[in-house]
Amino acid sequence: MLINCVAYQNGAKLADISVDHISDYVSLPGCFVWVALADATPQELQEMQQEFGLHELAVEDAQHGHQRPKIEEYGNSLFAVLHLIEPDAEQGGINVGEVDVFVGANYVLSVRNRSKLGFLGVRERCERQPELLRTGSGFVLYALLDAVVDRYFPVIDALEVELEQIEQQIFTKGAPHNNIQRLYELKRRAMVLKRAVAPLMEGVGKLHGGRVPQVCMGSQDYFRDVLDHLSRINGSIDAMRDTIGTAIQVNLSMVTIEENEITKRLAAWASIFAVCTAFAGIWGMNFEGMPELKWAYGYPAALVLILSVCGYLYYRFRRAGWV
Amino acid sequence: MLINCVAYQNGAKLADISVDHISDYVSLPGCFVWVALADATPQELQEMQQEFGLHELAVEDAQHGHQRPKIEEYGNSLFAVLHLIEPDAEQGGINVGEVDVFVGANYVLSVRNRSKLGFLGVRERCERQPELLRTGSGFVLYALLDAVVDRYFPVIDALEVELEQIEQQIFTKGAPHNNIQRLYELKRRAMVLKRAVAPLMEGVGKLHGGRVPQVCMGSQDYFRDVLDHLSRINGSIDAMRDTIGTAIQVNLSMVTIEENEITKRLAAWASIFAVCTAFAGIWGMNFEGMPELKWAYGYPAALVLILSVCGYLYYRFRRAGWV
Amino acid sequence: MLINCVAYQNGAKLADISVDHISDYVSLPGCFVWVALADATPQELQEMQQEFGLHELAVEDAQHGHQRPKIEEYGNSLFAVLHLIEPDAEQGGINVGEVDVFVGANYVLSVRNRSKLGFLGVRERCERQPELLRTGSGFVLYALLDAVVDRYFPVIDALEVELEQIEQQIFTKGAPHNNIQRLYELKRRAMVLKRAVAPLMEGVGKLHGGRVPQVCMGSQDYFRDVLDHLSRINGSIDAMRDTIGTAIQVNLSMVTIEENEITKRLAAWASIFAVCTAFAGIWGMNFEGMPELKWAYGYPAALVLILSVCGYLYYRFRRAGWV
Amino acid sequence: MLINCVAYQNGAKLADISVDHISDYVSLPGCFVWVALADATPQELQEMQQEFGLHELAVEDAQHGHQRPKIEEYGNSLFAVLHLIEPDAEQGGINVGEVDVFVGANYVLSVRNRSKLGFLGVRERCERQPELLRTGSGFVLYALLDAVVDRYFPVIDALEVELEQIEQQIFTKGAPHNNIQRLYELKRRAMVLKRAVAPLMEGVGKLHGGRVPQVCMGSQDYFRDVLDHLSRINGSIDAMRDTIGTAIQVNLSMVTIEENEITKRLAAWASIFAVCTAFAGIWGMNFEGMPELKWAYGYPAALVLILSVCGYLYYRFRRAGWV
Amino acid sequence: MLINCVAYQNGAKLADISVDHISDYVSLPGCFVWVALADATPQELQEMQQEFGLHELAVEDAQHGHQRPKIEEYGNSLFAVLHLIEPDAEQGGINVGEVDVFVGANYVLSVRNRSKLGFLGVRERCERQPELLRTGSGFVLYALLDAVVDRYFPVIDALEVELEQIEQQIFTKGAPHNNIQRLYELKRRAMVLKRAVAPLMEGVGKLHGGRVPQVCMGSQDYFRDVLDHLSRINGSIDAMRDTIGTAIQVNLSMVTIEENEITKRLAAWASIFAVCTAFAGIWGMNFEGMPELKWAYGYPAALVLILSVCGYLYYRFRRAGWV
Repeated sequence: MLINCVAYQNGAKLADISVDHISDYVSLPGCFVWVALADATPQELQEMQQEFGLHELAVEDAQHGHQRPKIEEYGNSLFAVLHLIEPDAEQGGINVGEVDVFVGANYVLSVRNRSKLGFLGVRERCERQPELLRTGSGFVLYALLDAVVDRYFPVIDALEVELEQIEQQIFTKGAPHNNIQRLYELKRRAMVLKRAVAPLMEGVGKLHGGRVPQVCMGSQDYFRDVLDHLSRINGSIDAMRDTIGTAIQVNLSMVTIEENEITKRLAAWASIFAVCTAFAGIWGMNFEGMPELKWAYGYPAALVLILSVCGYLYYRFRRAGWV
Repeated sequence: MLINCVAYQNGAKLADISVDHISDYVSLPGCFVWVALADATPQELQEMQQEFGLHELAVEDAQHGHQRPKIEEYGNSLFAVLHLIEPDAEQGGINVGEVDVFVGANYVLSVRNRSKLGFLGVRERCERQPELLRTGSGFVLYALLDAVVDRYFPVIDALEVELEQIEQQIFTKGAPHNNIQRLYELKRRAMVLKRAVAPLMEGVGKLHGGRVPQVCMGSQDYFRDVLDHLSRINGSIDAMRDTIGTAIQVNLSMVTIEENEITKRLAAWASIFAVCTAFAGIWGMNFEGMPELKWAYGYPAALVLILSVCGYLYYRFRRAGWV
Repeated sequence: MLINCVAYQNGAKLADISVDHISDYVSLPGCFVWVALADATPQELQEMQQEFGLHELAVEDAQHGHQRPKIEEYGNSLFAVLHLIEPDAEQGGINVGEVDVFVGANYVLSVRNRSKLGFLGVRERCERQPELLRTGSGFVLYALLDAVVDRYFPVIDALEVELEQIEQQIFTKGAPHNNIQRLYELKRRAMVLKRAVAPLMEGVGKLHGGRVPQVCMGSQDYFRDVLDHLSRINGSIDAMRDTIGTAIQVNLSMVTIEENEITKRLAAWASIFAVCTAFAGIWGMNFEGMPELKWAYGYPAALVLILSVCGYLYYRFRRAGWV
Repeated sequence: MLINCVAYQNGAKLADISVDHISDYVSLPGCFVWVALADATPQELQEMQQEFGLHELAVEDAQHGHQRPKIEEYGNSLFAVLHLIEPDAEQGGINVGEVDVFVGANYVLSVRNRSKLGFLGVRERCERQPELLRTGSGFVLYALLDAVVDRYFPVIDALEVELEQIEQQIFTKGAPHNNIQRLYELKRRAMVLKRAVAPLMEGVGKLHGGRVPQVCMGSQDYFRDVLDHLSRINGSIDAMRDTIGTAIQVNLSMVTIEENEITKRLAAWASIFAVCTAFAGIWGMNFEGMPELKWAYGYPAALVLILSVCGYLYYRFRRAGWV
Repeated sequence: MLINCVAYQNGAKLADISVDHISDYVSLPGCFVWVALADATPQELQEMQQEFGLHELAVEDAQHGHQRPKIEEYGNSLFAVLHLIEPDAEQGGINVGEVDVFVGANYVLSVRNRSKLGFLGVRERCERQPELLRTGSGFVLYALLDAVVDRYFPVIDALEVELEQIEQQIFTKGAPHNNIQRLYELKRRAMVLKRAVAPLMEGVGKLHGGRVPQVCMGSQDYFRDVLDHLSRINGSIDAMRDTIGTAIQVNLSMVTIEENEITKRLAAWASIFAVCTAFAGIWGMNFEGMPELKWAYGYPAALVLILSVCGYLYYRFRRAGWV
């Protein structure tokens, strides 16, 4: 589905154009065409391939989808795959979309898949900064990258908030089963984010310093800025995964500690009642020569004795912190 | 066993030829011969060695089999070892075959071992793309690599599906013994795949960018595409291994949590019955001066008292979530 | 908020100047202006951007704050983000502030955020070493870096002291719940420090050896010294994190060992009382033909027997170290 | 102890020579001397040092023994330390010997220590391939390396077989104590192998590709082949160590699962008997007004009631899978 | 405290000189002065700084002490910090001293801190090898490094011996509490050694191969030898840390296994006595119509029945290996 198709010259918008006129504008000096598709059909992609001379392998990747994030050079053009991460409100999970961006000296083609998040805002912001847009199609790639990466921040923030909630539960309330399931789920979501971020870092790293593709030459500092954001997110994810691992371990420790306390309490009460039962058993025997059974105050004395022993045990266990 | 032996010139099939005529075609300009063997005998390999001038060490590796995946340069020719991974339907495990590929400027020799998966489809696809096949024997290597790597995807998918099944079991039903055995088995299978993929990545990485062997010069972008697929699989395996490790830990946690709950319940019921038995023991003693034994309503009063105490304990344990 | 604004020439202070006169001094040969802001407003930052020609992205980072530590080159100028770590006395936690430093050939601008720690001492020390300050604005960057990094040492020392306290608790007293919570908290604080140190190491590493930015040329040895301090802190943090991991594991082991001992003791006492109760039960049966019940010394003999068996069991358990 | 001392020229054996004549042959063009010692005395080593001009530090290393595997260049000569790993039949462990090889343009000196494995076979194989031996002393180094590395394969195979045996035990029979001890022992043996292989990989890696020592120039492909074998072994060891770690964890899980099952069974039977005893205790009380005691069918009714309750409990526990 | 101060020329000792005459000797061709200090005062260091023109930062490091090991270049001179590790006989721990070495073309200054280990032996050994000492001050640095590193070997050996002792305890006797405390302590000591060795490896690595500081040029092979020793120690420490981690895990497993066995035994005996008590309870009931109570052989029959049941249970548990 075509979202829009606009020609730019020297940083300023020339015109909204139809796909048929792309070839006219592409050949103008200092001019580039920016086409945005969403959930493109194979026909649309093929049309674009002919219009811009896209590489067969890149188009194949865009068609198949489900690629890992990457930025690849094909001759003088670039092919970028980015993951769109958005919280999935219905299922409480994470939805992963994909944007494929083809960038040449005189064109930018972005194809958005399986995501409702659009990039209209990116286009507007670019058009408001003509002095930057003048540097060419590479700046558009930066703007798209920046928009995609900026959307990772709220996702990682949400994960961190949930981790903190679970942490509080671990040390206070007693729902270890629930905690561990949430931690497991959290780790899984962190992994999804990780797999969007880590390969992208590698790709963006090649767009500044050292040998940089021609189209990105003028926006190096900007790509370094994106890389810096990615590093920050990546650092947060790694820290979070490490913390989740520790939290699972700590949760297990807390369960074992609780079991330990219950075992102690069980042992204490079992002892107290066993003593009581043993005494009662002794005086419940049917021997004939048991003089204490005949004493006037035998019974109360026995009760006092039993209670004293049990009380003493209770006192000892109490002091030891067992009951 | 010879599967087939075909000569190609400028991307087009010249003829099915017999092994004896290989040397005639090899010397034609722009011509290369593609020979496919399966479970080759030492004699066949020796014949090929003489025909194509293969390096002694490479032939030795092909003969011994059970090599780790690799891509090695011998002068101007390449020797590649690839693992063929196929689900083993009978045993529910994984079967590992091997393809050894020798590539020179004017020949490709593939030797398939211990696997029923053939490469006829690869040859057909190559012949349908003469403009690519024209780039030479390096493209055939790419086509074989691509076919082998594409077969890894369903294997990793199957592993991921099974992992999800086990995950659901961990948090719902109670078959920890079974879960852990399946997780262990799964990890083992993931390792088999890992050992097919990781060393191959290293090898393929040398076929694009930087200094590339002559025969692969024209297909660099294609080899990068294969590398990208391998990275994706490798990433999935690493994530899976990490997840399996966590799942084993989580499974242990769930067992400990369950044990904790049973210990609590045991402690609770033990207390209740111990109280009941202790009271009964007291009134079962044979002292003479036990006035309550003579009371008209002594027995019902005792029963009520015992039941009240036990009931109160039950209520307390219930509220604490122990029973 | 402007803290101060001073012009220096050849290592000596020229004058405290107002912001309006910055442009006059910046153009003098061998002269640079050092401006210090705290919690700067966007207006102040914008003013500075115009005065010194700061790069848009760097100013944006300084405005947003919450950056990861980094040292970035923008043309001939540098932009550094440093974390200020100070123990938070009230909450027992750690407070993380931020200093953003812009360094050009003829200016240094430091912006301090969310921290009460000032840098007046740094300015004084610099002014006392005119022979070093003469090397230019790069030395001021070093002095600020050095001051920031020096403040990490007491933080890591405090963490190490607390770790030692917990370690002693693990092996002596019995507060496993508390220990594990403190270890968890400690790890979290170590992570905060780690995230201040590790990215900074990367940044400082680019300021000595190899290709060094022009403004830092004369202070290379000094930056290496800072890097060395950072390496030391980083090594301490890594060792601490490793130790905390082990300590959590050890704490769990200690809990399990304690549980084991209690289980043993429980088993021992349960056996002793069970034997006692079983004997008493036997002689409490109502059979008629129980001759021992009629014996003169039946009762004492029974008591002696019961006590002997129980005593023997106790002796055995004692020797086995169970009770 | 001198094993043998032979002079070779252009790949062919010239003569068995005595140590005194070494200097005569060493100076012949295209000629090299191959000396093999076993458990050499300091005197023998000193003699060889003078004969071949060995470097002081290398000779010192050979004398002290217990070096880590390495391949070092001293000017134009090489010094290699290799570990000889052989299963120690008597103790069921692993015996680690050492071979020190000094290689110069016109000599090879191998010194074997603490091992009964000889290298006569290597010499024979070399002499049967004069076209390869002609490339010089570097090929002898390859032949020795190859022989040493080939002997690692049966060792790692034996470890893998044992690991599989233990794995079967973990999931079937119940000997967790034994399993864990065997796993620990296995890991230790894997470490011994690892320490023979990993440093050697590093050393051999320098003998092909890039800057290669002069004496190994002609045998680069062969050294790459050895490196490939080492990589395979190294990969197997790493996989095994990872698996052992998981197996220890799994074994612990199985123990905990078994404990869980026993706790359940204990809890179930304890409940059943506690109920039985409590009922009996009630009717064993000595109250007067207990009408059921006088009933004609009181006793059988009581027995039926007790058995019914116990039976019901048993049924419930059975269904829950506890007994 | 000045230990000694000697001038050397062409590898031979010239004279013991006083500090005042240093400047006379330093300017002689082919001559260098070797000064040894112990626990130097700031005054002594300052004097040396002026005498040899030491870099301010290096002197500062030497004054503060507690540096991490490193080897730094300051212009044409080197500054090395080494850790002196010695077993602390009194506390059973490890004492960490420090040697700071300043090396220039014509001087060596070593400053030893917080350690009783001296370097007189090093000086003697150097003087006995004039042909090596002739290569200059770099060789003295090697000799000091070698002496320091050689002293690490007995420390690591002692740690390995203790690890083996603990390992034997883990699988035989039952002192898990003690084992784990010793393992923890061992790991801590291994860490101290690690922190002495790992950074030093990095530093020494720069003294051979590639770009080597001028003063070390002639002793490259010797520094590689030190590096090799450090690698060996580092490998041992890493292996030990890995083993300690496994040992802690195994120790926990052994505790759990023991607990499992005790739980089994407890369950078994509890069952046996519970059965006995239940039977006795039944016949202790006060029902009237209990015909077996009146039977002549009722009592012995009851005893036989009880014993039979208990005996059968015992037999079953025995066979299952529970008691």
